[in-house]
Amino acid sequence: MTKALLVIDLQNGVCHIAFFRSQDLPIIFIQHESSSLLKGSAEWKLISGLNYQSNDFYIKKTHLNSFYKTKLQEILNKLQVRELEICGAQTEYCVDTTIKMAHGLGYQLSMKSGASSTFDNQFMTAMQTIKFYEKIWEENFLDLF
Amino acid sequence: MTKALLVIDLQNGVCHIAFFRSQDLPIIFIQHESSSLLKGSAEWKLISGLNYQSNDFYIKKTHLNSFYKTKLQEILNKLQVRELEICGAQTEYCVDTTIKMAHGLGYQLSMKSGASSTFDNQFMTAMQTIKFYEKIWEENFLDLF
Repeated sequence: MTKALLVIDLQNGVCHIAFFRSQDLPIIFIQHESSSLLKGSAEWKLISGLNYQSNDFYIKKTHLNSFYKTKLQEILNKLQVRELEICGAQTEYCVDTTIKMAHGLGYQLSMKSGASSTFDNQFMTAMQTIKFYEKIWEENFLDLF
Repeated sequence: MTKALLVIDLQNGVCHIAFFRSQDLPIIFIQHESSSLLKGSAEWKLISGLNYQSNDFYIKKTHLNSFYKTKLQEILNKLQVRELEICGAQTEYCVDTTIKMAHGLGYQLSMKSGASSTFDNQFMTAMQTIKFYEKIWEENFLDLF
């Protein structure tokens, strides 16, 4: 059973990319496409400064759920991956939805504490939102380390 | 295509049970089982005062996700249901997870505004929590009416 790193709509640098690369484990970048995030635009491009490589996997999605109408599950099956480490943005949108779907599909999940990011919302600061979700995730969906 | 009402860990009375019964549409009660909610105990029993009937469906679950290691999908397939109206508790636990999984599995979802319930938490009141989740659900997962 292989483990892969799932990097969702990356907006910060806490993901374990260097570690997964050093272990020769697959790294999968998920990129969101929408009317305000047009494919090819500056906003759509992955943040610079990361060591992207041609043997990484790149998946486009149009919904919060990284599995929804994407090739993610097909790629994970081909790679025989059943274990995912998850990181990225936004905590309460794509990250939360993808965690819940991945767990429901039977994947074993882990996350480094603080590895998801978001913005302040109407009711919580970004930091509170992350704490709120990490508690739910840790108790029910993944190994938070 | 049939529509069913999914009643998750019911703790309040806003579910459309009478309406679904009047239309002869399936009603599925989900019940959680855990160490603090033992099967058969007073806490585990569905709230009284509702018109349960023997031709309703009753599903036990042990995880937030009503589809996780349960017979829910099998029953929905047999009934040829592809449309679900969802209600119940708790907003940020079982209801949210079940909505995200059901959407990911391709079901068409709807919910009456205010049809989920919860308690105050560390960061938000129960009412704020419901508003926070209903916004995410309405924009991405279901028809909130």
